[in-house]
Amino acid sequence: MHSMATIISEELEKHIRKLHERVGNAVTEGRFIVFGAGSTQLLNVAVHALSNSSSPAGVVATIPFYPVPYRSQTNFFRSMDYKFVGDTSMWKNTSDVNMNMIEFVTSPNNPDGQLKKAVLRGSSVKTIHDYAYYWPHFTAIPAPADEDLMLFTLSKLTGHAGSRFGWALIKDEEVYERMLKYTDQISFGVSHDTQLIALQQLKAIFQGNNGSDIFEFGFTTMRKRWEILSKALSESNRFSIQKIEPQFCTFYQQLRGPSPAYAWLKCERDEEEDCYEVLRENGIISRRGSVYGAERRYIRLCNLCLLHHQAVHAWLQHWRHDGKNNATRVARVNGKDVLKRHRQRPSQYNTLMELTAPSDQK
Amino acid sequence: MHSMATIISEELEKHIRKLHERVGNAVTEGRFIVFGAGSTQLLNVAVHALSNSSSPAGVVATIPFYPVPYRSQTNFFRSMDYKFVGDTSMWKNTSDVNMNMIEFVTSPNNPDGQLKKAVLRGSSVKTIHDYAYYWPHFTAIPAPADEDLMLFTLSKLTGHAGSRFGWALIKDEEVYERMLKYTDQISFGVSHDTQLIALQQLKAIFQGNNGSDIFEFGFTTMRKRWEILSKALSESNRFSIQKIEPQFCTFYQQLRGPSPAYAWLKCERDEEEDCYEVLRENGIISRRGSVYGAERRYIRLCNLCLLHHQAVHAWLQHWRHDGKNNATRVARVNGKDVLKRHRQRPSQYNTLMELTAPSDQK
Repeated sequence: MHSMATIISEELEKHIRKLHERVGNAVTEGRFIVFGAGSTQLLNVAVHALSNSSSPAGVVATIPFYPVPYRSQTNFFRSMDYKFVGDTSMWKNTSDVNMNMIEFVTSPNNPDGQLKKAVLRGSSVKTIHDYAYYWPHFTAIPAPADEDLMLFTLSKLTGHAGSRFGWALIKDEEVYERMLKYTDQISFGVSHDTQLIALQQLKAIFQGNNGSDIFEFGFTTMRKRWEILSKALSESNRFSIQKIEPQFCTFYQQLRGPSPAYAWLKCERDEEEDCYEVLRENGIISRRGSVYGAERRYIRLCNLCLLHHQAVHAWLQHWRHDGKNNATRVARVNGKDVLKRHRQRPSQYNTLMELTAPSDQK
Repeated sequence: MHSMATIISEELEKHIRKLHERVGNAVTEGRFIVFGAGSTQLLNVAVHALSNSSSPAGVVATIPFYPVPYRSQTNFFRSMDYKFVGDTSMWKNTSDVNMNMIEFVTSPNNPDGQLKKAVLRGSSVKTIHDYAYYWPHFTAIPAPADEDLMLFTLSKLTGHAGSRFGWALIKDEEVYERMLKYTDQISFGVSHDTQLIALQQLKAIFQGNNGSDIFEFGFTTMRKRWEILSKALSESNRFSIQKIEPQFCTFYQQLRGPSPAYAWLKCERDEEEDCYEVLRENGIISRRGSVYGAERRYIRLCNLCLLHHQAVHAWLQHWRHDGKNNATRVARVNGKDVLKRHRQRPSQYNTLMELTAPSDQK
């Protein structure tokens, strides 16, 4: 006899497998699944499971990377078994070091939206693939991901970041057991209310034209925003953004252009070294490149965030037309909204949900 | 402008304060509140917040104690900042040791239902009070708890253990900030779906006769079960259970008898050293005393768990009447149910909910 809670967990697992099969973004056959309080929790769960007490592991990621979960969280527990040791490039010759390595691979990458592969090689290297953005909203899907330990989250799929629900696909049974033990020890697993709501969300995805609607909406919206930004900056010598090549997408069965979650913008003028300040003076609040381990010439813009996108758009429109700062007033109004938003944690959630805001539907 | 998520969190906090005021089981004035994925998560969050990197802390609890969260979880992270170091009694003279101490105090205690106070004293000692069972269901409320760091959980209040929702009341702002940072680092806080459901549950408590109904039901049900067990064992020389003295309860404004969540049973016969086996042979699956750091003569019975209570009751009825084992068949049927239940994590949740099962309503 199974309890209702068990039945819901099993249904949820089935729907996760079904969704990956529909999208073709991950191999689930023969993989174990562990639920987490967002993929954020699962990052540490995975680091724990891949490290062992006999020989501490060095944890790395490749610059530019999002530091909050990778560096801060890994070092937060001050575990004897693992430690964040910096940029992958510093550890390329792992044969030199007497240390187990765990490499975070984020693909598409935050902040620059590039599809990534693991950098380190060798028997002492284990990888954690963070596929939060590996959905047709944000990238072409060249092939199903087929890595040892892959993380996904509802947050960037449906926008329900506030639900705090993520999952791991795991090849190795022992690693699976260790991850399960972690979530059991810390909280006896994931809230069953949250699991029920996650299941409802996955069911809703399939109700929308067997899953086509959400990706069509996500892709066209993100693509449109990227085109606006690209066009505005195409003739600029002052700012540049990352190049992402068109790729064949197995989900759409055609070549498709980029639609990344974030723009990784560079200030090109010699005198504009501090790109964050340049934008801030124009009422645009961005994230500093230094946060991601990069030069101050870089900042991250959020295409995913409606208010932020609108503020950037308004500013660029005016800036292009007369080359002056007379867009500042307009943009600053929006800029303030963005600033406000960044101060309120709960409203940082549900960013993709904002895509559906009426003002973006014209 | 506050987001809906923020408004829900604030409402939830208000209702938590209102409930403690109604019950009179904890001082909330001037206390900070942190939410967690059950109080289980908050145990580690609290240990982290009370320890520091300059001098590692020794974490202790008093035998008999429930080991899963206290010992296993504390050592699980292999942190450089804290370590579980055993029974409180071994550390009574903390002036002898050059170590910060963190003492878990569970009141009423699991397994024996006794109200407890901290054992260790001194400036290097910090305490975490686990008040999961400090509700009128399970104990008289002699006075509002007024400790530095107090943990509560929905699990033992309404029975919604599957929701994984707990909260901490914290006196010190710095400790509060450290706890908040932990839940932020590991999962950006607690699922907002879960918070919404927790809020609905607290509202429902007040809808039941301004909070009287749930405690009346919980207390009378638990009290009845305890009386059945006490009466059955009152003339026994073979088994004894813990004595809990009647106490004045400020919630009921009268003296009231015990109604603990668990019975802490001792096998008294010389030849019955392994109490777990004695009960198992009679179809009753209990928890071994050794799990709680006690002798094998002790086992824990779950009064809170309906099926377990019924199995024990059936067995005791028959055992009392003819002194033989002819209740084994009946009890074993129930015993098997209990065994099954113990193997299925999700059905271990919602134990108090089982109180409402129709078979207990006659």
